[in-house]
Amino acid sequence: MVAGALLALGELDAAHTIQLVGRASVIEATLAELLAGEFATLDGARGRVQVVDAPDVIEMSDRASLVLRRPNSSMSLGLRMQAEGRSDAFVSAGNTGAQMAASKALLDLHPGLTRPAISTIFPTAANPVVVLDSGANVDCSAQELVQFARLGAVYAEDLLGRPDPSVGLLSIGEEAEKGNAVVKEANQLLQDAAGINFHGNVEGRDLARGASDRGPIDVVICDGFVGNVLLKFYEALAPVLITMVADGAGIDRALLAGTFKHLDYNQYGGAPLLGVRGVSIISHGSSTPVAIKNALGVAARAVETEMNTHIGRRLADARPSRPPAA
Amino acid sequence: MVAGALLALGELDAAHTIQLVGRASVIEATLAELLAGEFATLDGARGRVQVVDAPDVIEMSDRASLVLRRPNSSMSLGLRMQAEGRSDAFVSAGNTGAQMAASKALLDLHPGLTRPAISTIFPTAANPVVVLDSGANVDCSAQELVQFARLGAVYAEDLLGRPDPSVGLLSIGEEAEKGNAVVKEANQLLQDAAGINFHGNVEGRDLARGASDRGPIDVVICDGFVGNVLLKFYEALAPVLITMVADGAGIDRALLAGTFKHLDYNQYGGAPLLGVRGVSIISHGSSTPVAIKNALGVAARAVETEMNTHIGRRLADARPSRPPAA
Repeated sequence: MVAGALLALGELDAAHTIQLVGRASVIEATLAELLAGEFATLDGARGRVQVVDAPDVIEMSDRASLVLRRPNSSMSLGLRMQAEGRSDAFVSAGNTGAQMAASKALLDLHPGLTRPAISTIFPTAANPVVVLDSGANVDCSAQELVQFARLGAVYAEDLLGRPDPSVGLLSIGEEAEKGNAVVKEANQLLQDAAGINFHGNVEGRDLARGASDRGPIDVVICDGFVGNVLLKFYEALAPVLITMVADGAGIDRALLAGTFKHLDYNQYGGAPLLGVRGVSIISHGSSTPVAIKNALGVAARAVETEMNTHIGRRLADARPSRPPAA
Repeated sequence: MVAGALLALGELDAAHTIQLVGRASVIEATLAELLAGEFATLDGARGRVQVVDAPDVIEMSDRASLVLRRPNSSMSLGLRMQAEGRSDAFVSAGNTGAQMAASKALLDLHPGLTRPAISTIFPTAANPVVVLDSGANVDCSAQELVQFARLGAVYAEDLLGRPDPSVGLLSIGEEAEKGNAVVKEANQLLQDAAGINFHGNVEGRDLARGASDRGPIDVVICDGFVGNVLLKFYEALAPVLITMVADGAGIDRALLAGTFKHLDYNQYGGAPLLGVRGVSIISHGSSTPVAIKNALGVAARAVETEMNTHIGRRLADARPSRPPAA
């Protein structure tokens, strides 16, 4: 985490500062070691880093709800700082369930939402596609899938720079009547939803291609069970495929690893938890310093583009307006 | 289809014959052309092929139920021949929904089953894994997932030669309490199910690796929505990855295409519809002759190993036995 923060300082605009929240003595020792060694040439880094002591720890194996009873954990403290306006964004590679619970409790959800969603980037044959939900919600209603469509569209606009993003609904056939019960209902709702550029149903093959026969796709909507299974399957494939190709064609593994970096989650670094009123970025527990640097970059872009404000506005526009007072 | 049948005759034991069911004039013309050309050196082929005239056609776009009102379609006629003992197995690359409906109606289901399931082979970093259901059933009950476990275990034993196959339940965490409502219930049922070597929950990454941290996996169980999305995603990745690697590392595409053949569904050819009392193999609508040849190979192995009998016995063993008569 500390090395990732220092890498980020080397790339981010000089106005950005980073707060490292955790056990201060451990962080200070790590900082001193890295600044004397690997990052000795990084000028002015120490002045852009603030160490915030959080004596309590939420372990990866702890129940998510524990975070709400541990106000001095790095997870609670870091998110509370944002809720109180002392920071603009939060990045963690800790317990995902705890981060979701604390983000929801401390930052709150935008009005009109029932749940936040985790949005991840899938590399494809065409442009990368935003997939959500990737694991926050396992059993979703059709209405929640429509909410994900609005959240994902703002993500694609602000973080990927896609104007009027095309939103596909993941199913097992392009026809509106194909899918499970929830997806069939969501298809009908999305056809009638104002403010969403609905692409219609898309299939697994369309996600891999980044496009259906009807054109490019920017966002793919699914429940968190399907999204999580797909994400973990895709992430694990890179090393599998490197082995297949290296053994099959006698090609050097190191060369291949470079070409498969599109499939490496470290290149994307962090998945925003969309729907909370703020910026909460979820990173892998096994993140490398490069992944953390990239997650901090995602956080900075989310703040700079005011993604959170745009999400609030988009959701407000979608709510039925009250009848005019008589 | 005709070229695939001739390829299969070149590989199958000489005792095997193939019935080509469809519009006889078209089949006869194609047969004559292929036997005079590409297959001119295939001795005795014509004597091992029987042409069965089926004047009606079920189109890919037709509703599945239409097949039951078209007894002279190749789909109905071919399956009825098996039901009447005039053939041992049926292979089609036609309308999948119609094949499922006709297989269920004409061959019937084994007692104790509510639905058949499509089982497909996923290449992995380790041995190939049997995944079911791959699209026959979108909204599944926990009891149906348990049935799929029994069907998949027999498939892995008979067609892949795996003794006591390890059956994983696809979820979003290895712990029994992770997953959507149906998967959590299925986990409990599978823990108590006699005759199933239950591996516990497996994640998307375990499917790609062919193993979890607890050891190798032979069969993965999921509902047909998740299975179909995963299958189509995986199938479409091969060309995507070939492009990534070719462009990224400057490697010849033809060389790569060979190494990615593990990902090519044509290598597997056909997915058995498990649970019907007989052998009904579903092939891709875009199958090549090699895919059809391989599908016929799957059909032959299913007959030779008596997979259908084994499925019936396995399901009978799982049913609660009646109390002894007083």
